[in-house]
Amino acid sequence: MSKIKFAVVGFGGMGGHHARHLIRENNHVEVHGIYDIKEERREAGQEEDFKVYQTLEEVLSDKEVEAVLIATPNDSHKEIAIESLKAGKHVVCEKPVMMSVSDFDDVVKVSEETGKVFMTHQNRRWDSDFLIIRDLYNKETIGELFQIESRVHGANGIPGDWRHLKAHGGGMLLDWGVHLLDQLLFMIKSPIKTVYSDMSFVLGDDCDDGFMSYIIFENGVRAHIEVETSNFIKLPRWYVKGYKGTGVIHDWDLSGELVLQRETDVKHEPTPIQAGQGLTKTMAPPSEEMTERRSLPVVEAEYESYYDNFFNVVRQDAEPVVKNSEVREVLVLIERIFESAETGKTITY
Amino acid sequence: MSKIKFAVVGFGGMGGHHARHLIRENNHVEVHGIYDIKEERREAGQEEDFKVYQTLEEVLSDKEVEAVLIATPNDSHKEIAIESLKAGKHVVCEKPVMMSVSDFDDVVKVSEETGKVFMTHQNRRWDSDFLIIRDLYNKETIGELFQIESRVHGANGIPGDWRHLKAHGGGMLLDWGVHLLDQLLFMIKSPIKTVYSDMSFVLGDDCDDGFMSYIIFENGVRAHIEVETSNFIKLPRWYVKGYKGTGVIHDWDLSGELVLQRETDVKHEPTPIQAGQGLTKTMAPPSEEMTERRSLPVVEAEYESYYDNFFNVVRQDAEPVVKNSEVREVLVLIERIFESAETGKTITY
Repeated sequence: MSKIKFAVVGFGGMGGHHARHLIRENNHVEVHGIYDIKEERREAGQEEDFKVYQTLEEVLSDKEVEAVLIATPNDSHKEIAIESLKAGKHVVCEKPVMMSVSDFDDVVKVSEETGKVFMTHQNRRWDSDFLIIRDLYNKETIGELFQIESRVHGANGIPGDWRHLKAHGGGMLLDWGVHLLDQLLFMIKSPIKTVYSDMSFVLGDDCDDGFMSYIIFENGVRAHIEVETSNFIKLPRWYVKGYKGTGVIHDWDLSGELVLQRETDVKHEPTPIQAGQGLTKTMAPPSEEMTERRSLPVVEAEYESYYDNFFNVVRQDAEPVVKNSEVREVLVLIERIFESAETGKTITY
Repeated sequence: MSKIKFAVVGFGGMGGHHARHLIRENNHVEVHGIYDIKEERREAGQEEDFKVYQTLEEVLSDKEVEAVLIATPNDSHKEIAIESLKAGKHVVCEKPVMMSVSDFDDVVKVSEETGKVFMTHQNRRWDSDFLIIRDLYNKETIGELFQIESRVHGANGIPGDWRHLKAHGGGMLLDWGVHLLDQLLFMIKSPIKTVYSDMSFVLGDDCDDGFMSYIIFENGVRAHIEVETSNFIKLPRWYVKGYKGTGVIHDWDLSGELVLQRETDVKHEPTPIQAGQGLTKTMAPPSEEMTERRSLPVVEAEYESYYDNFFNVVRQDAEPVVKNSEVREVLVLIERIFESAETGKTITY
């Protein structure tokens, strides 16, 4: 079957990454050309020997182009997506896919009407750290997981482009938040019960520079999701608790471990420790005999890579790994998180 | 001035600690005798050559006894405190001082009527880890602190005595929680705006074996307070963020550090890193030139030790370090936390 020819619309950081690596390095898709609203970026594309379109109309009227990759500022995704679908192109759209659930519904409707594929690029479903946690969750390696803490901490603030402007869909909830929430809902197949959230505005931007969200699922799982950009020391990327142990992944390097309660008939009491001004047995380390340390598992995704899947969705009517119904649920959750942070109240689903 | 003679009522873990160490080792107070409702504990006291009372009435009718230390299960504090005050004794009461705000008000009323001192033993105001954080807060060493995370993680569950029975005032909110909340409110002199909380019941007890509480103060400070007893890996004891840096204290050994933003005119951009499936500049470590590592300060309390202070309150009408108005505020907060966890809602002050 022939490769799918992509036009990359938006040749900034992410568009460039798709054009130079993600699309180029996949065997089933290829970059036919690039377009950016900014002249200097079009020139940069020319210097890299990409075919460069001068207008979006030119992209959409090129019969050779079968699919469009949208990597423009968030507030422009909707219009470009709808125009592309109506021009008969399939669409892969960067995250956060839309600024609202209703915008997303409008786009999916056009996708259904035109019969063209619309897929969101939630690439962090393939992150190794996430795959490890998902494996722990599915296999119950440390018992049934009941607490999942997923944090991304940076110290560099928000990059100085449209990402720190609310009107363009800036802010950390829509940026890194959408990844962490997508991972969470992809992993936990249970309805949400309640959401509480708070946002930080310490950098002085008009959009959030970080947020925390505490999500209680119907199945009892508690999730703490947090993104921050003013943390000079990081808390672990993942911290999870199961009924038989605890797991931690410190950072992108996948350093971390599992500590499990050892199954034994003999109960070895912990030795009380001096903690500050008092003695404590409750907070003493468990005796060595009572626990067992294990390495984190090495995990591969059991689902195919993003562009392989996109190809099969388009050519073979395969099921998308990133389903629009899932993406929509994440957007619903994002709206609930904004609402909770703005009102200070818990939102009940 | 003569020493204050104490009767220790409740000769379990904490009562024994007061009798053998805290009271005995202080120059202004002394143990006159001990009493416990359990015969085996009275016998244990006898073997250690303490004067042992056979009944509470015997304690209270002993004219030599000037003060009573209450270290009995939480649900019995109120009655013993009121009887002791009415018998003309000063009272030091272990934490959690009472099961409710209204019980506390009843006891304070009797204290005022009798003119006898009633003080709660919130000893963790003298913990070195807390003193370091309070110092950072007061001196703004890493800028004004706006986020304070205080966690105590154990892996041993709740000790197998009355502490895991709700009727006796068991559970971690009343146990370690009262310490962490007392430290927080002693440090932050601002009204509370909202409280959100969730409790864990993973051990199968009828009281909480852990809780998290997210508190927003009127002055903008966010506090995350957490006690858990099923964590085989610990998160740091303290994690705090200021406008100029981040601080961490890992454990009771006071290991930890401060990382500050270096004040410089030249901005060194961070180098993007590969994080999972994507590149990120936002979450890249800041360049070395942009940050500065410092050791944690060594801090002594500027207020006198607990029993020195108690002595001066009784003998010299000094101001108590642990004021009843402060203790009451902590109890109010605890009731709000229970309410939030039970209803799933944010509580607005």
